[in-house]
Amino acid sequence: MLNFKEQAEQFEYFLKKQEKKGLFKGSPQNLYDPCHYMLQLGGKRIRPSVCLMAAALFSETVTEDVYWSAMAVELFHNFTLVHDDIMDEAPLRRGKPTVYKQYSTTAAILSGDVMNIYAYRCLQYVNAAHLPAVLSLFNQTAIEVCEGQQYDMDFEQQDVVAEQDYIEMIRLKTAVLLAASMQMGAICAEATQEQAKRIYEFGLNLGIAFQLQDDFLDSFGTEEAVGKQIGGDIQANKKTFLAINAQAKADEGMALELSRLKELKGEDKLNGMLHIYQQLGVDATCKQAIELYTNKALEALELISVPAERKQPFVQLLNFLMNRNF
Amino acid sequence: MLNFKEQAEQFEYFLKKQEKKGLFKGSPQNLYDPCHYMLQLGGKRIRPSVCLMAAALFSETVTEDVYWSAMAVELFHNFTLVHDDIMDEAPLRRGKPTVYKQYSTTAAILSGDVMNIYAYRCLQYVNAAHLPAVLSLFNQTAIEVCEGQQYDMDFEQQDVVAEQDYIEMIRLKTAVLLAASMQMGAICAEATQEQAKRIYEFGLNLGIAFQLQDDFLDSFGTEEAVGKQIGGDIQANKKTFLAINAQAKADEGMALELSRLKELKGEDKLNGMLHIYQQLGVDATCKQAIELYTNKALEALELISVPAERKQPFVQLLNFLMNRNF
Repeated sequence: MLNFKEQAEQFEYFLKKQEKKGLFKGSPQNLYDPCHYMLQLGGKRIRPSVCLMAAALFSETVTEDVYWSAMAVELFHNFTLVHDDIMDEAPLRRGKPTVYKQYSTTAAILSGDVMNIYAYRCLQYVNAAHLPAVLSLFNQTAIEVCEGQQYDMDFEQQDVVAEQDYIEMIRLKTAVLLAASMQMGAICAEATQEQAKRIYEFGLNLGIAFQLQDDFLDSFGTEEAVGKQIGGDIQANKKTFLAINAQAKADEGMALELSRLKELKGEDKLNGMLHIYQQLGVDATCKQAIELYTNKALEALELISVPAERKQPFVQLLNFLMNRNF
Repeated sequence: MLNFKEQAEQFEYFLKKQEKKGLFKGSPQNLYDPCHYMLQLGGKRIRPSVCLMAAALFSETVTEDVYWSAMAVELFHNFTLVHDDIMDEAPLRRGKPTVYKQYSTTAAILSGDVMNIYAYRCLQYVNAAHLPAVLSLFNQTAIEVCEGQQYDMDFEQQDVVAEQDYIEMIRLKTAVLLAASMQMGAICAEATQEQAKRIYEFGLNLGIAFQLQDDFLDSFGTEEAVGKQIGGDIQANKKTFLAINAQAKADEGMALELSRLKELKGEDKLNGMLHIYQQLGVDATCKQAIELYTNKALEALELISVPAERKQPFVQLLNFLMNRNF
């Protein structure tokens, strides 16, 4: 069984092959250069890799249409990043200028659009017997990702966000695509509907746990382990799981203190916020939630009726993702 | 045989039914309200109507999946308008504020994205036997439409545009979607590949002729017949078929005069340009081109082996579109 890293390499090889065949290298250049730029920024290729892993879970051989499904989710994911960066006015992505900064907003809109369509184009190569199921799943997921992005933007304008609404938002914005990537691999590998649904459940809960852990690490991680500066969410007053829980749990005095800190910048703000988070115990609440969703993921994986050693790459991935130091 | 207007009514009825069932009425409202707004701005529904017409050309009964194909092309077309209006900074669409003006650029980007995905979602309802062919055609077309939009924007930055590049641009930006709408209807109605290809050729050439006629009427139409002010393209120095032909044919003196007129505004500019167009005979050149593509369209229609009376709605449509007064 290939592990995550090996599958990621397999996918990267497939992607390079498509690029050599001319993917995003044709005319008009002003349309395709930004697509190429975005793709070569790299990233961990998590979604396509788990798509391949899910196929390998149910079948000895990973057929070419699984690679096309993997490519579809990767292109779709990159399309959403290109457009999200415009909406969020983000200057950098993976340490490089975002597409709209490097080219223009117009270029980023149209190039994003064509990347989305190229994602669908990959689905053409899916075995016709599986195409209706794969297309439906992909459509539903793509719609949910847009809904998640909208809720995320809506929340930034709201005074109060309920915890369950926040979980629903990250489910839509992040988790469903990870889950669907796995289910697509499973469908192509001829898993039964029930088995395919279970790997979706695994991916969904892992995705939620992963996002919650991201929230946690931004406040309580270490810079070496996380690979970026701690406290970015706090400085930006982002409505993370920690922030909305702190707001919900704070008494009147603490609420005033939270409001005061929000107006600040720098170390004082960070330390003040972390202190309140700990006083209110939202760090523990977050850890509990991470554990809850991690366990749900493992339960779903448990129910999949293939030999245990086949599941090892997924268990490893979960451990790897969830044990980023904290 | 239902004519264009009757098919347009059939489609409108189907669209209303979907809206009653909740299309673009759910949550998050900030995502779906702009989609609903765009759709209810109306329009002539040309693409979905010709999709239904093409199915009726080859089959007694128009099945529900043809309506879904029609819906897919209409949603896709509306998505492109939403994004094009951002890129072109257009304030009005069908006399109302464009989506990005009415809501925001962010809203227009994300709502456009989800409309595009909803277009693909409609394809789920296409008979599985036809889905691979329909999906491939739709993908190819969608990519070409993006390429056409990019070329159109590129041309505005170029000093000189060759006539054949201009024709290629309008083929991509406008004609292929009309053509594909017809071919999708034909495929769903189980036309042979050859027959489906012919109705595509009909639509493609009609689309090019139609766009050229649009260029012609903007300069040489009458305000009553065209329904908008004459000379909009001239005032905006748009690179139309007339403009690029005039530039190509002008001698040194006329080229200077063209440059001078471009800097002006208002009636003097319009009259000056029209005078040069007539002196150079680009009005006649444009009419010849329109006739050429109209004849190509009719030849393709001729070759379709169904009884002549079945083709009547297409002949009527062509006459209706091409005999807008000039």
